[in-house]
Amino acid sequence: MAKKTKKAVVLLSGGLDSATTLAIAEAEGFRCFALTFSYGQRHSIELKAAGKVAKSIGAFQHKIINIDPSVFANSALTDKSIRVPLDRNLKSSEIPITYVPARNTVFLSYALAFAESIGAFDIFIGVNAADYSGYPDCRSEYIKAFEKMANLATAAVIRKKGHYKIHTPIIKMTKAQIIKTGTHLGIDYSLTHSCYNPDKIGKPCGRCDSCRLRLKGFAQTGLKDPLKYAKR
Amino acid sequence: MAKKTKKAVVLLSGGLDSATTLAIAEAEGFRCFALTFSYGQRHSIELKAAGKVAKSIGAFQHKIINIDPSVFANSALTDKSIRVPLDRNLKSSEIPITYVPARNTVFLSYALAFAESIGAFDIFIGVNAADYSGYPDCRSEYIKAFEKMANLATAAVIRKKGHYKIHTPIIKMTKAQIIKTGTHLGIDYSLTHSCYNPDKIGKPCGRCDSCRLRLKGFAQTGLKDPLKYAKR
Repeated sequence: MAKKTKKAVVLLSGGLDSATTLAIAEAEGFRCFALTFSYGQRHSIELKAAGKVAKSIGAFQHKIINIDPSVFANSALTDKSIRVPLDRNLKSSEIPITYVPARNTVFLSYALAFAESIGAFDIFIGVNAADYSGYPDCRSEYIKAFEKMANLATAAVIRKKGHYKIHTPIIKMTKAQIIKTGTHLGIDYSLTHSCYNPDKIGKPCGRCDSCRLRLKGFAQTGLKDPLKYAKR
Repeated sequence: MAKKTKKAVVLLSGGLDSATTLAIAEAEGFRCFALTFSYGQRHSIELKAAGKVAKSIGAFQHKIINIDPSVFANSALTDKSIRVPLDRNLKSSEIPITYVPARNTVFLSYALAFAESIGAFDIFIGVNAADYSGYPDCRSEYIKAFEKMANLATAAVIRKKGHYKIHTPIIKMTKAQIIKTGTHLGIDYSLTHSCYNPDKIGKPCGRCDSCRLRLKGFAQTGLKDPLKYAKR
């Protein structure tokens, strides 16, 4: 196999979408530097999942970055006094309370700084606009605006070393297509963690948006989700 | 005096430019939340300066945020094995080695997350395109691109709560104009710290880009810089 020399920074939460995105970046021949963020998230179990996923898929490096959680307020993912909505209508056009203020912007900014630091110009993010929860920072117009900004922000562009590209390989896929793609690439989805609201031993709830989108995706593929869900 | 109710997030390094920017935001009637970043900078003495400046100018809140310094590599400000250039030609079109990868993007992203968290829509940053060191993330085209991205990134905009504005009140000023403006607003510049390369007891070197731009600015105003510089 050819040696991978072109570097990419890949945002990796440890969930199904970002695991698939990492596997796609690997399959495209990038030497992948995976970044995971610890920001006081309720489901911090995803940090461990991210480590296992990075190793299993073969990332060249995996880094966990701490973010001061006080900049991310009023979200059910960061404030334990706000409940994660269960059995919510997924067709609702309202942005759910699990939205974290400007989270992808903070994550992509770190990815950009790190990319410039290591001489990478390719950044992968597993945003998904089809089966998603209505987050504004998962839309392609947002990603395009970030990419434009990134190419004005950085010395590497002015020095003509390259041009930043934000890759969103799964943005138009359904959850079922994502799972099929990842399965084809050999991802072990038992290592991933999607639930916003796991129980004390880390079992997914099966009722939050993230669990339900995942379960719906597996159901549509005819494949079985290898995770064991908490009893309702 | 009218009670200040409109909130603003102000990036505050503790230097002359950001102190003046904070004073302008205060004078415009904002209730200011100042953010300072600890990112392993060589001149970490600026963190203390920022605290004094925030208090002296009357910021409503001052927050210091820790950033993992490993995302900011290859800069003389974060890597002590790289020397800060002294007596550099300030007219050089090259971006100096004190450039920190995507720093303003990371800082503004935190400001955006914090602004959305506290219900602010106004963000102030003391970038300056006239007397500056050639950093790409100090240019107005960059700031405009960030602002556009910010308004696509956030739930508050979709929920029609407001529209984000990145204020750059000193972007077109010369250093002398900045100093005159700040002096008029009552800033005590003895509290500020600009040097990239202070000595062990915190005295500015007088020879790095930042010191020289500052000294040139004071010289042009006819005012005296209240700082005591290290002997050459």
